[in-house]
Amino acid sequence: MGKPVRRKETRRIQLGSVPIGGGALVVVQSMTNTDTRDVKKTIAQIRRLERAGCEVVRVAVRDEESAKSLGFIKKAISIPLVADIHFDHRLALMAIDQGVEGIRINPGNMDFPRIREVVRAARERGTVIRVGVNAGSLEKALWHKYQGPTAQALVESALNHVKRIEDLGWTKMKISVKSSCVPTMIEAYRKLASVTDYPLHLGVTEAGTLIRATVKSAIGLGVLLFEGIGDTIRVSVTGSPLQEIPVAFHILRTLGIREVGPEIVSCPTCGRCEIDVPGLAKKVERRLSGFKDYMKIAIMGCVVNGPGEAKEADIGIAGGRGMGLLFKHGAIIGKVKEEEMLETLIREVYHMKREREAKR
Amino acid sequence: MGKPVRRKETRRIQLGSVPIGGGALVVVQSMTNTDTRDVKKTIAQIRRLERAGCEVVRVAVRDEESAKSLGFIKKAISIPLVADIHFDHRLALMAIDQGVEGIRINPGNMDFPRIREVVRAARERGTVIRVGVNAGSLEKALWHKYQGPTAQALVESALNHVKRIEDLGWTKMKISVKSSCVPTMIEAYRKLASVTDYPLHLGVTEAGTLIRATVKSAIGLGVLLFEGIGDTIRVSVTGSPLQEIPVAFHILRTLGIREVGPEIVSCPTCGRCEIDVPGLAKKVERRLSGFKDYMKIAIMGCVVNGPGEAKEADIGIAGGRGMGLLFKHGAIIGKVKEEEMLETLIREVYHMKREREAKR
Repeated sequence: MGKPVRRKETRRIQLGSVPIGGGALVVVQSMTNTDTRDVKKTIAQIRRLERAGCEVVRVAVRDEESAKSLGFIKKAISIPLVADIHFDHRLALMAIDQGVEGIRINPGNMDFPRIREVVRAARERGTVIRVGVNAGSLEKALWHKYQGPTAQALVESALNHVKRIEDLGWTKMKISVKSSCVPTMIEAYRKLASVTDYPLHLGVTEAGTLIRATVKSAIGLGVLLFEGIGDTIRVSVTGSPLQEIPVAFHILRTLGIREVGPEIVSCPTCGRCEIDVPGLAKKVERRLSGFKDYMKIAIMGCVVNGPGEAKEADIGIAGGRGMGLLFKHGAIIGKVKEEEMLETLIREVYHMKREREAKR
Repeated sequence: MGKPVRRKETRRIQLGSVPIGGGALVVVQSMTNTDTRDVKKTIAQIRRLERAGCEVVRVAVRDEESAKSLGFIKKAISIPLVADIHFDHRLALMAIDQGVEGIRINPGNMDFPRIREVVRAARERGTVIRVGVNAGSLEKALWHKYQGPTAQALVESALNHVKRIEDLGWTKMKISVKSSCVPTMIEAYRKLASVTDYPLHLGVTEAGTLIRATVKSAIGLGVLLFEGIGDTIRVSVTGSPLQEIPVAFHILRTLGIREVGPEIVSCPTCGRCEIDVPGLAKKVERRLSGFKDYMKIAIMGCVVNGPGEAKEADIGIAGGRGMGLLFKHGAIIGKVKEEEMLETLIREVYHMKREREAKR
């Protein structure tokens, strides 16, 4: 692994049980796409998100009925709940009253005089406020000033609101400046990080369906996280939010920022490949889908890079003709037939997990 | 879109019909995973790759029979062919003799004295040489010197070979220093770019199955391309190489480096969503899968960011209750019922394409 990322120092805020910023782990968030009024469905989706590893969840609050559901939802889940509010500041007041850990307000569609009351209520209850700017809903005045949602416009919108909330004596805030344009989003967060020490929530918004969203989020979040910017992240995918969580953790793991779950190194396979690498890699992924420990596993098809990669991994297979060499911590520990590779790898993974636990 | 990426200046080489470096377009490569001896299957896969947009293709040459297939393969395809050679320099000589546009040699497994003949043959035929270092097959001496495949070790391996090839009077080269560890790979290419002006071929190697590989490649290639580093790229995916091409183009499009194909901006959907955004987005993607022109299309589910994003797009839909506003170049041009959205969008896309063509 290369040099560890040196994270930019931010102030620490506490979102319910989850610390954000100030050297805390980068937190993975998601957002439900159920109708928030449907308490049962919303709770079920949040529980699935929790099991997938989601650490903070946001729900859309579009009307009073949604706001009134928040208390019930909160009681049934174990991760902090954030209410996403647009246009109507009274919904924010209701959400705070229902005890949510955080609210997200959008400077683009809530005039400041309206949210004065909201800030007072948040201060009384200790509720975190995310000032969440979005290129698609930038306030008109800034849109005209900058002739569109430029990075500078997004930052100015966020800082204006942050300043006003501070003036009312409340600083439990985090900030986001999302855009569907990755270069704009990167530029905006870099500017923001250079002028504020509030924790930053990163996201590429409206990123599209799974592969497109994965590319855009990996680049946007990846560039920033690699520079040490970002305290909490969300990968937005059009479709089920459950798809977002593994992508978020893959991004963090790739940069060595959080070592969660198995890193599976497998070759693209070429004309040299002598075992079924794709089949084996997919099976190993499936069998280890709930596995939370970090472990580097190499599944390689031939003798070119196979032994080298397998040697660098915690556990590795380097394939030959229907056979493979099994590596553990850089040493060959045996030969395995192709049909026994899956079970052998899984057995070795759990064996290593037990060895590590015994050493603690 | 943010500021355009300023690309680092490299020298230009010509790989058959495809220019690489020196301000040329960033070229998208892939590699077959068929048995190269099976000429028919290999040609069929390359043709599918060509149709998907692949611009240079590499094939593994592991024995004489594979090497002898190269001439037949070359005649049947329209993109430059690169022979991937390890261990045996005689296969490189045979590949050059068969007229391939490029060969890739691996300093980790071909001693320099052995490739003297190869360089002479390449020089005579005008064959491009890629000096392709890979962390998994780094030469033992450097592995020991650096205690593993560090960024510095990869760069030193590449530069040693480049220098020796130059000394033999041949400079039609490109260089790669791949690793399965993204921070290492980023560091290696940054170092390399600071000391050489040869065109660089970027790749994260052994990146894993589709989603993992997309994350790793998007971060590794994205960070470097955003800094202006990289003249040609490959996304490695465990499985069919056909999956690699759209990911490569999504990366280039995201950074505004190549405007190829439609950019589809669609919201993650939340409790506010009033139309079936995922369904519509997927259908639009499918219908436009062969569409090569750049066009920004927004498919948005509600009134929060919908009108803003739709306004910024070339063509956009902002959904309401079973209805949507249709935007074109920032202006509302009509209301559309949900069941007519797909056909309306597709019609408008082709209409805009014709308008553009008429203006040329």
